[in-house]
Amino acid sequence: MHIELKRHAGTPLSKQIAQTLSDRIRSGLLKTGIRLPSVRELARSLKVSQVTVSKAYAELERMELIHCTQGKGCFVGPDPEDGGGTPELSASWQLSLIDYLPRAHTWRHFQGSSSDCRYRLHVAMVDPDLLPNREICRNIHQLVTENPAIIANYGPFQGDAELRQALSVYFRERGIAAGAEEVLIASGSQQAIDLVARTFTGPGDTVYMEGPSYSGAIDVFAARGARIVTVPVDHEGMRIDILSQLCDANPPKLIYTVPTFHNPTGTVMSVSRRARLLELAQSYNAIILEDDAFSDTYFRTEPPRTIKSLDRFGHVILVKGFSKILSPGCRVSAIVASGTILNRLIAAKTIADLGSPMLNQKAILPVLQSNLFQRHLKRLRAALKSRRNIALELLKRHAPRGVTWTEPEGGFNIWVTLPEWARATDLYALAQREGVAILPGITCYANEPEHHRFRISYSFMDENSLREAMILLCDVLRRYLANPVPRETPSRPTL
Amino acid sequence: MHIELKRHAGTPLSKQIAQTLSDRIRSGLLKTGIRLPSVRELARSLKVSQVTVSKAYAELERMELIHCTQGKGCFVGPDPEDGGGTPELSASWQLSLIDYLPRAHTWRHFQGSSSDCRYRLHVAMVDPDLLPNREICRNIHQLVTENPAIIANYGPFQGDAELRQALSVYFRERGIAAGAEEVLIASGSQQAIDLVARTFTGPGDTVYMEGPSYSGAIDVFAARGARIVTVPVDHEGMRIDILSQLCDANPPKLIYTVPTFHNPTGTVMSVSRRARLLELAQSYNAIILEDDAFSDTYFRTEPPRTIKSLDRFGHVILVKGFSKILSPGCRVSAIVASGTILNRLIAAKTIADLGSPMLNQKAILPVLQSNLFQRHLKRLRAALKSRRNIALELLKRHAPRGVTWTEPEGGFNIWVTLPEWARATDLYALAQREGVAILPGITCYANEPEHHRFRISYSFMDENSLREAMILLCDVLRRYLANPVPRETPSRPTL
Repeated sequence: MHIELKRHAGTPLSKQIAQTLSDRIRSGLLKTGIRLPSVRELARSLKVSQVTVSKAYAELERMELIHCTQGKGCFVGPDPEDGGGTPELSASWQLSLIDYLPRAHTWRHFQGSSSDCRYRLHVAMVDPDLLPNREICRNIHQLVTENPAIIANYGPFQGDAELRQALSVYFRERGIAAGAEEVLIASGSQQAIDLVARTFTGPGDTVYMEGPSYSGAIDVFAARGARIVTVPVDHEGMRIDILSQLCDANPPKLIYTVPTFHNPTGTVMSVSRRARLLELAQSYNAIILEDDAFSDTYFRTEPPRTIKSLDRFGHVILVKGFSKILSPGCRVSAIVASGTILNRLIAAKTIADLGSPMLNQKAILPVLQSNLFQRHLKRLRAALKSRRNIALELLKRHAPRGVTWTEPEGGFNIWVTLPEWARATDLYALAQREGVAILPGITCYANEPEHHRFRISYSFMDENSLREAMILLCDVLRRYLANPVPRETPSRPTL
Repeated sequence: MHIELKRHAGTPLSKQIAQTLSDRIRSGLLKTGIRLPSVRELARSLKVSQVTVSKAYAELERMELIHCTQGKGCFVGPDPEDGGGTPELSASWQLSLIDYLPRAHTWRHFQGSSSDCRYRLHVAMVDPDLLPNREICRNIHQLVTENPAIIANYGPFQGDAELRQALSVYFRERGIAAGAEEVLIASGSQQAIDLVARTFTGPGDTVYMEGPSYSGAIDVFAARGARIVTVPVDHEGMRIDILSQLCDANPPKLIYTVPTFHNPTGTVMSVSRRARLLELAQSYNAIILEDDAFSDTYFRTEPPRTIKSLDRFGHVILVKGFSKILSPGCRVSAIVASGTILNRLIAAKTIADLGSPMLNQKAILPVLQSNLFQRHLKRLRAALKSRRNIALELLKRHAPRGVTWTEPEGGFNIWVTLPEWARATDLYALAQREGVAILPGITCYANEPEHHRFRISYSFMDENSLREAMILLCDVLRRYLANPVPRETPSRPTL
């Protein structure tokens, strides 16, 4: 087990160890029944005192994530009466194998039992019926008919030249002066974020991000061993004043932000904060990684322009995903960057997979080039707005007292806050029994999780199913807040 | 600039610094004209003495990779008379940005000027005319017609269940007992290797591989900061006796091997060495990463079974790419692993890109399931054998004295050795002028490169073009060996 300890950080080492292990347990990397290394072993391998490890294990026991038995050791999961807790023998050598995956919440969360739920409020993806599937499939048909050899060749590492040209037009229309040569194609936003992280961040680096944030990005930066510092969000987005203070003590290498219809809270960073964030990055020679998945899905007025559109010295790397608005299945995103930052990212993309498949890139090209795209976005915005209205209306009507939520003006997500004593993971388990999946907020925090929040996405289900889901969820909410799950029940999420 | 120094390695620090910088310069990450940090700056940032950095810079000057001018500093590239060597000012803050990309030879090599050559002997990919493109495209047509929503959904992180099932049959036929649940789909072998590297290797770890080896794998492990140790290859593949001795001093975390029709030498590891390699991995609790791109392309008899087929305790991770034998454009490969190693790789795949596109996976499925696959492989083997024969025959007839080469019994590649004084990079430049691209051997070495070797691939061009290419190449060879390029000319490859 590789635990990246930050020896000069404010957080005590025992807490850092407990945090890492709890992340690994919660995300399923350490399974129930697995025996943890002994206090002595772990202390030796991490070069810390045994007292430090003992404290960490005690904390994990308190959190009911592990149980320790005199003479036998500590095991993942609650204490079983049946004498469980013995690791599989065949794979026992593998357990000693150190890895570099501190957490993998996305993995566990989106393909666990939630996927079997009838009502899928947990996925921030768009209803397939709202996407231009027939048009994209028609393009694919034409591509393979006219040139079957398209599947017999590698594409350019940087991505298809025609697609990059079309994207350059798309970006120019949005105030970003990027030529085709400044665009790099990646396989979805997730890979784009990962390419930036693997190229520019490592154990010595401080990465700032909103707290809460997109769990896939947290997974990525945590896997790089970067020190992640979270900055609170208010109605104007990331608190740049607090970020600025934090940077005094720990200069940023990279600031990851979802400024427009932030995931999970739905808030929009104000124009003045965007400008201040860019100034701050300039003054520290830092990178801003601007993740823009949602700006095309506004409900009233266009949101402020991207931070990238203000960028004169190449500090901003913009990631624009097309999974949310065109096709998750094609796995296409664009990275906009310049200078040696761009070159290094192209090199990283080459190392990662030799380039994205050409067919998938060419598939969305005619859509981007035609008027269809604008018509599609208009229809998509209207449909999402209608679903957002349904979700908010039903929350207003049926949610019990003490529950609050954000009212997004775009994007896919509503961020719900329970009374402080409550735990979204308990609610998650109860809702799942009714066939309703939600995203417990703890997956959205890099460090100290806030247990009383969760995310719902109104984007995936048709209006009728959404209505049923919201009514069911409010019903579960009411029952849960009236009759909280007794504390004896482990609060560990079974993601 | 981040340089991972191994302070207790046998190699002097100055040599390690020179090695890393030469890799970065040769692969184009540091471009001609860029100013290197001053001796004092680099010494401070690496925490080494100024003498060490001075030695490294002197070595790089000797290699004609940089030039230093009193009072001005050291610049990448040969000394220009025109007063060049000033970095672009606009991007100057970016140059100070530390990254984690020690080399990217693949990037530079396969999309540089070589791609413009008429005769492409440098790419180990198959002639598109030899692949079942029409069949795969027919499948794609059917998929998008019957279910347009295929492009509107994410697939399972682990990969399509049907494809994994079909692959399980494919593997069973080859002596590997892996259920569908033990198969993970990645986007090409390159990503598969990268997933293993990012999950299990880091700066503290020793990775063994054949020297020479596949440049894409070297890029990956170098980017992880792993200590790469190379093991020589003879006619029976990797020298396990030497590996065994090396492991005494530096226990392996992972051993990367291409045992069958090794890239670039074409050799096949013997059955007994396969067994010994597995025993060695077991005794060190190490992983074997077995890269099998070529085993289906044998010319006489089936090669020995994979090391994975001998594996009882989950030490071997098998990577089976389908780009070489079915479709580079679909970007599909399979990873076979078990236990927690498999779980961790699935988590890594999720973090990397949320899973490969479903359309691309489903596209090759019917081919794998039908008799067509066997018929296709038979035809492919015959065509490749015929091309190999042409290449060998022309080498025999036209190559000048002093040149030797391997005679592969499968795969795509011939490894050519020049007299020791010669430099394949000089030959590369001369051949390029005649429109012939080759792969200089230096891209295939993780550490000390051997300058007098290069790789040619007979797989890409049709027979007539291959004949022309080989005759031209032999002609260039003859001229080069008779009249070597004078030493004043920089030997730096312009990859």
